[in-house]
Amino acid sequence: MTIRATVWGENIHEHVNEVVGKLYPEGMHETIAQSLRQDKNITARTAVLQDAEHGLTDSVLSQTDVLLWWGHKDHSAVAEDIVERVARRVWEGMGLIVLHSGHYSKIFKKLMGTPCSLHWREAGERERIWVTSPNHPIAAGLPPFFELENEEMYGEHFSVPEPLETVFISWFQGGEVFRSGLTYKRGAGSIFYFRPGHETYPTYHDVNVGKVLRNAVTWAYNPAAPLTSIHDAPNTPVEQSHEPIVERGGKLHKPGEAGYK
Amino acid sequence: MTIRATVWGENIHEHVNEVVGKLYPEGMHETIAQSLRQDKNITARTAVLQDAEHGLTDSVLSQTDVLLWWGHKDHSAVAEDIVERVARRVWEGMGLIVLHSGHYSKIFKKLMGTPCSLHWREAGERERIWVTSPNHPIAAGLPPFFELENEEMYGEHFSVPEPLETVFISWFQGGEVFRSGLTYKRGAGSIFYFRPGHETYPTYHDVNVGKVLRNAVTWAYNPAAPLTSIHDAPNTPVEQSHEPIVERGGKLHKPGEAGYK
Amino acid sequence: MTIRATVWGENIHEHVNEVVGKLYPEGMHETIAQSLRQDKNITARTAVLQDAEHGLTDSVLSQTDVLLWWGHKDHSAVAEDIVERVARRVWEGMGLIVLHSGHYSKIFKKLMGTPCSLHWREAGERERIWVTSPNHPIAAGLPPFFELENEEMYGEHFSVPEPLETVFISWFQGGEVFRSGLTYKRGAGSIFYFRPGHETYPTYHDVNVGKVLRNAVTWAYNPAAPLTSIHDAPNTPVEQSHEPIVERGGKLHKPGEAGYK
Amino acid sequence: MTIRATVWGENIHEHVNEVVGKLYPEGMHETIAQSLRQDKNITARTAVLQDAEHGLTDSVLSQTDVLLWWGHKDHSAVAEDIVERVARRVWEGMGLIVLHSGHYSKIFKKLMGTPCSLHWREAGERERIWVTSPNHPIAAGLPPFFELENEEMYGEHFSVPEPLETVFISWFQGGEVFRSGLTYKRGAGSIFYFRPGHETYPTYHDVNVGKVLRNAVTWAYNPAAPLTSIHDAPNTPVEQSHEPIVERGGKLHKPGEAGYK
Repeated sequence: MTIRATVWGENIHEHVNEVVGKLYPEGMHETIAQSLRQDKNITARTAVLQDAEHGLTDSVLSQTDVLLWWGHKDHSAVAEDIVERVARRVWEGMGLIVLHSGHYSKIFKKLMGTPCSLHWREAGERERIWVTSPNHPIAAGLPPFFELENEEMYGEHFSVPEPLETVFISWFQGGEVFRSGLTYKRGAGSIFYFRPGHETYPTYHDVNVGKVLRNAVTWAYNPAAPLTSIHDAPNTPVEQSHEPIVERGGKLHKPGEAGYK
Repeated sequence: MTIRATVWGENIHEHVNEVVGKLYPEGMHETIAQSLRQDKNITARTAVLQDAEHGLTDSVLSQTDVLLWWGHKDHSAVAEDIVERVARRVWEGMGLIVLHSGHYSKIFKKLMGTPCSLHWREAGERERIWVTSPNHPIAAGLPPFFELENEEMYGEHFSVPEPLETVFISWFQGGEVFRSGLTYKRGAGSIFYFRPGHETYPTYHDVNVGKVLRNAVTWAYNPAAPLTSIHDAPNTPVEQSHEPIVERGGKLHKPGEAGYK
Repeated sequence: MTIRATVWGENIHEHVNEVVGKLYPEGMHETIAQSLRQDKNITARTAVLQDAEHGLTDSVLSQTDVLLWWGHKDHSAVAEDIVERVARRVWEGMGLIVLHSGHYSKIFKKLMGTPCSLHWREAGERERIWVTSPNHPIAAGLPPFFELENEEMYGEHFSVPEPLETVFISWFQGGEVFRSGLTYKRGAGSIFYFRPGHETYPTYHDVNVGKVLRNAVTWAYNPAAPLTSIHDAPNTPVEQSHEPIVERGGKLHKPGEAGYK
Repeated sequence: MTIRATVWGENIHEHVNEVVGKLYPEGMHETIAQSLRQDKNITARTAVLQDAEHGLTDSVLSQTDVLLWWGHKDHSAVAEDIVERVARRVWEGMGLIVLHSGHYSKIFKKLMGTPCSLHWREAGERERIWVTSPNHPIAAGLPPFFELENEEMYGEHFSVPEPLETVFISWFQGGEVFRSGLTYKRGAGSIFYFRPGHETYPTYHDVNVGKVLRNAVTWAYNPAAPLTSIHDAPNTPVEQSHEPIVERGGKLHKPGEAGYK
């Protein structure tokens, strides 16, 4: 069994900011993909904003078990119909890992149903990431905490729904805290938000970050066939009801008529 | 203290379907509003699809503590910018009660981030609603279960996120079950989904249903000032950090620059 | 409507440790009770370990809407039957606020079903408590964060179940984080764990801490009659079933026999 | 990788009730174990109440990845220290599947922290089990619902904490509903409660029930090393703090002293 991951990158700052370009000469998405490939059970391809259909064609998505999403500078450039397409695949069971500034991506806000706001500071301060769910599959093999010497600060309040589980909480040198690892389920799809990953720091070269990403892909993978029925609201006619019943009362719908959407 | 409720009704079937018109001659929204007014701590106004801005102007919403939503036949007629406006007020702390076929309303799908699909059958069968959280404020004063002799069936799988709490589960005569009372929080706003309420049956004249609606309005009321800060992602500059830190590493943002959205 | 709070204190360190005695000359329980009384809707009595039945007689508990619990040095001195009695009242709907070192009290461990362990350091370091659920009733009137200049450190992993809601997260000067405000429900009773409150510091004289305690008491108050039925597993005989059914298959129980416990 | 399951059976009714004895001539535990062995990745042993230490020695538990628990007639016969031993292993990461009348077992009540009460009726009525989380690993390969023609009824209110996820809800012929599949986490251990399994019916010979049990064992399996640190509350001394701090304020504890428990 191999898990097919697709790493989506915005792919802008690598080309316009010298610091980012030096840290990630092949693009952040490629660095992340290489990190995933260290697990022989994962195959990883990449897709970027500039590709046709942002690289997220029906064909690519149908062959993607877990999608990773990194965007920051130009969330608004992502086409609405592609966002809808990705959301549908998540509901059907595709896993989704949203990274760092992806908290403001269209797809994350759509799936959360909240603003996904936070406080921030770009000062290269120390972040210490504490594991709050020690034996969670996403934390497998990690120490009780790990540090990133230089990171952007994200501070609470982070306006997302209460998660299923809080896996990580970050401590920041400047005095803030942040829920850095959160799990959700939307339809049949598992979602993980992971905070670190500011583009001006070497975060995606960090050993522990790599471990988290590989763990998260494995955790979010759903081997079941896509739950395409999730988009429908089928009528169960009286004559097919599980227990015998007799129709009563007033009616809106004619026999066989579809419901309103 | 008075809670200001606004009952939003689609207001179509009352005029085009004879059964519905007879059951709710003043409109379903008006019947629901009258039910709410039985609690002297609640004032209830109404708004309908056909009003300018669907009756949900900035002014009305700013004076609404809890919004109730009933729609069915024409969800798509609700303007996108009004949906966005309502969502923003929920995030700021306005309560929202979504009723029956409102499961497919734009506002509910937006706040849930899922398809909100289900199975259904319009056969006037018996529904028995069991309380699964007996001392929940929304279940106050209710017996362990209550019955609606004629209702539309909604069956699982109901594709919504795991709720904070499951307050009611329905048994249907034809053999299905459904999570009929679910609580959520999105931003500072509390949300309650309540299943019963098909327009061809006298559900909103039922004593227990009325009690649930009044309880739900009281539960969803948030006396705090609107949390308007929830829409922002403010920068906390280095010189204002809570603990003294020195800026390090590469940078994307110039001093004072806003973040990307 | 008045909420009847009982503040339970272990009442040991006030008498054997000079620092604690000076900070809380009337006992920590009395300082906490005085803080609660600043809300005119709350009446607060106290009870201590040394009282007969630890001050938690059936009579006292039946007149207690919300119980606050502070213990540290001698959790094992609390009698098992009193723990069971308190648990039963929580299941029936009494609110419970567990404070600081009460994480290791018998009653908290019993209600959580987990070890409730954590890391700690007594160094009088700075704690900054961030609100992670801004409009939660327990956070009403608080700023986005508040500080306690001297507190004991509690660090993750805190081995409690995933909460219903995370209301506060603490930042510590020495580098740790902690989920400092957590809500739970057990039976009909609401439970709030609140981290600060080490006895060698003036925490319970802090204005924001007082506000949290009063808010928490108000939040945990359940006006419903005690849900005494929660202790039973009643049989619903065939002849009283809601839908007509005919008895079939093999049987263990004779008619009218009670279930096994 | 093989998952080591231990099926614990009370092993009483098989010997004293003729109906049960005929359905499960080798004992219910053995039938369940045989069902598990249909998955070649699972090895299953059994243990019964009558064994020394109820068959749950330190050695057996240390070699058990997932424990399944069926008891009914004599929960009180299980020794307290064995219950504590099992709880500790769950907290360290052992999975636990609690079956049917095990809702009233000491171990389940201890881990839930609630009465775990419900309504019941032994009438051999039809149970229809609906999947409410379609792509959950525990529901893998199941149809949208399955039926058990003869089962004992369990009805709400089921006084357990809100679960992480509701996987199944049952419909009963006599008019009740029940949350039949619930997931929890306690410490590092995953817990699944599964309702069906009354001893006078052939439930554990059912194909779908067998599938659920095998799925649940696979889901509850935690490959990580036992989290034995979960029982401790270690002190992190000032001189080893992650950030440099200076000790301040009053103190209770002498250097190196253990915390109170």
